[in-house]
Amino acid sequence: MIPATHRRIVLVRRPPAEPAESDFRIEEVAVPEPGPREVLVRVVYLSLDPYQRGRMRDTASYAAPVALGEVMTGGTVGEVVKSNHPGFAAGDIVEDRLGWQEYAIGRGPSLRKVDPKMAPLSTANGVLGMPGMTAYFGLLDVGHPRPGETVVVSAASGAVGQSVGQIAKIMGCRSVGIAGGPAKCAFVKDTLGFDDCIDYKAGTDLDAGLRAACPNGVDVYFDNVGGVVSDAVLRNLNFFARVALCGSISQYNATAPELGPRLTGSFVGKRVSMRGFIVSDFAERFGPARRQMAEWIAAGRLKYREDIVGGIEKAPRAFIGLLRGENFGKLLVKLGPEPNA
Amino acid sequence: MIPATHRRIVLVRRPPAEPAESDFRIEEVAVPEPGPREVLVRVVYLSLDPYQRGRMRDTASYAAPVALGEVMTGGTVGEVVKSNHPGFAAGDIVEDRLGWQEYAIGRGPSLRKVDPKMAPLSTANGVLGMPGMTAYFGLLDVGHPRPGETVVVSAASGAVGQSVGQIAKIMGCRSVGIAGGPAKCAFVKDTLGFDDCIDYKAGTDLDAGLRAACPNGVDVYFDNVGGVVSDAVLRNLNFFARVALCGSISQYNATAPELGPRLTGSFVGKRVSMRGFIVSDFAERFGPARRQMAEWIAAGRLKYREDIVGGIEKAPRAFIGLLRGENFGKLLVKLGPEPNA
Repeated sequence: MIPATHRRIVLVRRPPAEPAESDFRIEEVAVPEPGPREVLVRVVYLSLDPYQRGRMRDTASYAAPVALGEVMTGGTVGEVVKSNHPGFAAGDIVEDRLGWQEYAIGRGPSLRKVDPKMAPLSTANGVLGMPGMTAYFGLLDVGHPRPGETVVVSAASGAVGQSVGQIAKIMGCRSVGIAGGPAKCAFVKDTLGFDDCIDYKAGTDLDAGLRAACPNGVDVYFDNVGGVVSDAVLRNLNFFARVALCGSISQYNATAPELGPRLTGSFVGKRVSMRGFIVSDFAERFGPARRQMAEWIAAGRLKYREDIVGGIEKAPRAFIGLLRGENFGKLLVKLGPEPNA
Repeated sequence: MIPATHRRIVLVRRPPAEPAESDFRIEEVAVPEPGPREVLVRVVYLSLDPYQRGRMRDTASYAAPVALGEVMTGGTVGEVVKSNHPGFAAGDIVEDRLGWQEYAIGRGPSLRKVDPKMAPLSTANGVLGMPGMTAYFGLLDVGHPRPGETVVVSAASGAVGQSVGQIAKIMGCRSVGIAGGPAKCAFVKDTLGFDDCIDYKAGTDLDAGLRAACPNGVDVYFDNVGGVVSDAVLRNLNFFARVALCGSISQYNATAPELGPRLTGSFVGKRVSMRGFIVSDFAERFGPARRQMAEWIAAGRLKYREDIVGGIEKAPRAFIGLLRGENFGKLLVKLGPEPNA
């Protein structure tokens, strides 16, 4: 039964610093009708990810900003409830970027059928979705880890970081995480199997912690955070180290460009290479990568943790918490029940 | 006639900031006697290069520091005056890194015979030597310029920069230099043929200057200077831009790590790649590169300017000036007459 109305969250103000709940508005609107070659999707999981902070800014980037009054952008997994598209039928599980709303029109080409037997639905937004692909390609294709090398990843218990460190282990590397607080660090070491994890909130000397955790230095740094945490890692890079720049969450709420130590001088003699990347650059290779990740999950070699919040009305507060590092694992909002649940 | 004594310059103090002449000492010592498989070289040209500032520091780097009391390191071109090496004869012109001294023992493997018919002797320390190879490999192998792209190089009238911009032109790129003062900028544009040159000492807005000189943005930045000049270039990079990190001369006399705007956040969405390099990493390919550069010189496509100071006693002051940007072209010290001159 398709309801007449559904709820969605629109952006009403561009936050100059940390977003507030009042920057968003929840609306109840009519459920739309799919046109030719379109489907109507009931969203089950909405993915909250740090990149969405960038879409709230009115500045040129690799993707257009969300317009004021427009639905917030976000990855989704849901159920097709009505289809005018020959490639999809009611009951299909699909992944797409349909935004912060309970029902939405999908029309491709980003609409992708998900095999619900492969793994739980929620993983299509997580370890087998955008964050998992980010970890896979950022580590392997940008970081180029070699067996025996040391890989450091920041935000290690987060959606991307948890996979980065485990894939590094699978590749034969020493895997060191950086996370905030003892619970996250214990999870990273004990459950995910990283060799070590440094608690950046412990108030101890990060450089000393890195030297202890990385006795042979740092060969690959997968950076999700930027700022002072990254400063410390970048001071401990080895000759010919690679830095995969995935994100800079510590800077996303900054009101002005922050100052930090100049890096480029030390990169010359050490022949450091640093490269920014966006997961969609690797889109044509997602299929085999996703199958590989699913195999590792099935074999017990790749674990994941999700932090699931219930109800679309919770999305703004959860997103604000994500930027503060309050989530523990991949942050999802469950908008409705799973099919047949 | 080989004299009994010669002069050399040793390091006597590690300068905490800008070097002073008193950090060096000139000594008169006996001319050494070559042993088996060694040659005695009379140095004609001594090369002064910014990297030598790094060797004055007692910190780990890609090369060992100069010890206190030891001869300063430096590239040299000179004449073999006595040989116990089967591969070299008296009268041969050789290039090597024999340091700041009038006579020195050469023993390989860095000892290299120079063909004096290929180009003037001085070029073996310049456009056909280490700085020229730095420009060639840094631009082509690290910067990967494509026809139609815009290449920006800092210290554009310097030993490395002048070749970078001209090779960029040969590759079909728009070539924009950054140099200090109207005379250097006029030389870069009018004599070397860069498309434009920005005077960073003019006190005008560097960002605006870059936008005007690079209407299609910056695709490749060859960085010799670091600091505020590079900040401006890095703000104007295009998507998928490459940054070849060759040096950071603006930072070499710094007493503490300088702060600058954080870069990594903007590198993600733009997929910027940045890589530090050292010319010796490409040593096995110097032969063909040098022949290519010599062909371009012969064809009038690659010009060079040298700034030649006379007398070894002038080396410390000239080196201090190099770090201030006072030289105009490749800085050399002429220690004695050219053979048959």
